[in-house]
Amino acid sequence: MRKIKLTIAYDGTDYFGWAKQKNRPTIQGVLENTIAELTGKYVELFGSSRTDAGVHALGQVAHFEIDCPVPTENLARAVNNKLPQSISIISAEQVKPDFDAIKNTKSKMYRYWIYTGVNRPVLQAHYCWYYPYKLDSAVMAQAAQYLIGEHDFKSFASAADKRSSSIRTILRCDVQSAPEISYAYHRAANVNERSSLPWICIDVEADGFLYNMVRNIVGTLVEVGRGRYKPEKVEKILKACNRSSAGPIAPPHGLCLMWIRY
Amino acid sequence: MRKIKLTIAYDGTDYFGWAKQKNRPTIQGVLENTIAELTGKYVELFGSSRTDAGVHALGQVAHFEIDCPVPTENLARAVNNKLPQSISIISAEQVKPDFDAIKNTKSKMYRYWIYTGVNRPVLQAHYCWYYPYKLDSAVMAQAAQYLIGEHDFKSFASAADKRSSSIRTILRCDVQSAPEISYAYHRAANVNERSSLPWICIDVEADGFLYNMVRNIVGTLVEVGRGRYKPEKVEKILKACNRSSAGPIAPPHGLCLMWIRY
Repeated sequence: MRKIKLTIAYDGTDYFGWAKQKNRPTIQGVLENTIAELTGKYVELFGSSRTDAGVHALGQVAHFEIDCPVPTENLARAVNNKLPQSISIISAEQVKPDFDAIKNTKSKMYRYWIYTGVNRPVLQAHYCWYYPYKLDSAVMAQAAQYLIGEHDFKSFASAADKRSSSIRTILRCDVQSAPEISYAYHRAANVNERSSLPWICIDVEADGFLYNMVRNIVGTLVEVGRGRYKPEKVEKILKACNRSSAGPIAPPHGLCLMWIRY
Repeated sequence: MRKIKLTIAYDGTDYFGWAKQKNRPTIQGVLENTIAELTGKYVELFGSSRTDAGVHALGQVAHFEIDCPVPTENLARAVNNKLPQSISIISAEQVKPDFDAIKNTKSKMYRYWIYTGVNRPVLQAHYCWYYPYKLDSAVMAQAAQYLIGEHDFKSFASAADKRSSSIRTILRCDVQSAPEISYAYHRAANVNERSSLPWICIDVEADGFLYNMVRNIVGTLVEVGRGRYKPEKVEKILKACNRSSAGPIAPPHGLCLMWIRY
C-alpha cells in the first residue's frame, strides 16, 4: 500500500461541490471514478476541504491509499489525461503512511473576488460576485482586522456545522481593491466603469474554517463596505456567538481555495 | 425611427458565434429575440465583427433602427435585465441616421491569451489557449513586427473569406509575456510552474481583419515561439499570398474582441 498526496485545481461551476453524492457530479466522485477506470482499484479520497457547489480551488489537497504497480507520477499523468478540463491534478507525491490531508493541515488560504463595476463581468461571471454598488474597501479592511487572532467564530458558521468546537485562529484577512487581474480585462477603451478599480479581493488565511465561514465573513464585510454596519460592529458580531447577528452569506462562485499548508 | 449604437460584451463559450443561425444559439440571435420580446419589434442588428463560435468580446459594436417610445437608456437597461449572464450591453446611445457600425470602423483591437504553464488553467479554460510548451515571447514579438503596416494578408485569411480585397493595415501587434492577469491567479503558493510568467498576450489592432486573420497570425507566431520558424519567415509568408505558407490556426477560445474605434 502506498499513500499518495494530491494537489488539485478545479472549476467548481458544474459540480455539486467536493464531497461525493449519489447521482450528482462532484469533484471527489470524478477523481475516484477516474482512478478506478485506470487502475481497476476503488480508492477513497480524503479531501482537506469540503468545498461547496460552485466554489473553486487552485490548491485543494487530498490523500488516498492504493496498491498498484504504476509509479505515482505516471499514475497522476494518466489520471490527468482522462479528467475533464475543469479538474486538474497539479502534483502527486508519495507520502509517509501517517500523512493525513485533513488532520495535518497547518493553515489554509481562501480568496474571494467581488466585482463592483456597473456592467456584468461576462468573462468572469462564474468566478466573482457581481455586486454593482460602491464598496468602501478601506473600511472593509478596517473591519477585517477584528477577525484576526483566536476567536469563537460561531456567528460566522452556518447552522449545518456540526464540528465540536467553533474556535479558530485567523492569521490574516486582507481586503484589497484593484489587484492586478483587473487591468488586463478593463484596459478595454470604451468600458465606462464607475471606478477604474472595480475589483475587490479578500484573502482569509486560518488554521481551519467552519462551515460557510469565509462566505459569511465576506457577506458581513460587504455590509460594512456599503455603510450598513460600522467596522466596530464586527467585534460585537464575534462576541454574540450567534449566526443571526452577522450579515448575509455571500454567493459561492466568488470563492476559491488557494492553497493548504502542511 | 431612431438609430441606436450598442457596445456589447459576451462570453462566446456557449454560442455559435455572433451571426444569426437557424436553430442554434448566437449572440445576434439572443439580442434580437430579447429586443423583440420587450418591444414587440423585430429589428436587425448590424454587428461590426462576425466573431466565430467560442470567441469572446468586451467591446463588440452593433447598430439597429427601431420605432419605439421607450428612451434608449431604459430600453438598454430592460434588455440587459433579460439577457443571460453571458451577454451584457455595456452602453447604448442614439446616433445619427448615417452611423454604420460596420462601415464607419476606424480600427479594431483583438487580444489573444496563451497559457504555457504545465497544468491546465482550470479557471481560464474557456478564455485562453492551453499550450503547455516553452514559447520564446521575444522572438514572437520580433516576428510580429513584420506584420505592421499595409500588406496583402491573403496568407492569413481562411479560404472561406470572400472579401474583394485582402489588403489591410495592422497598426500594432504586441506580444507580451506575463501581463498583470497572471499574478492574481498564480500567486498560489504551491503551483509549480515551469516559469513564473506562463501567460502570453497578443494584441492586434488593425483597420479591419480578414476571416480568421488573428487566429492565423497567432498560430504562425506560436510556430516562431517554438523555434520551428525563424522570425524572418513571417515576411516570406506575407509575400507568398497563400494560406498554406502560414502556420496552423489557433483555437477560437483564446480570442477576445476588445474594442472598436469610430
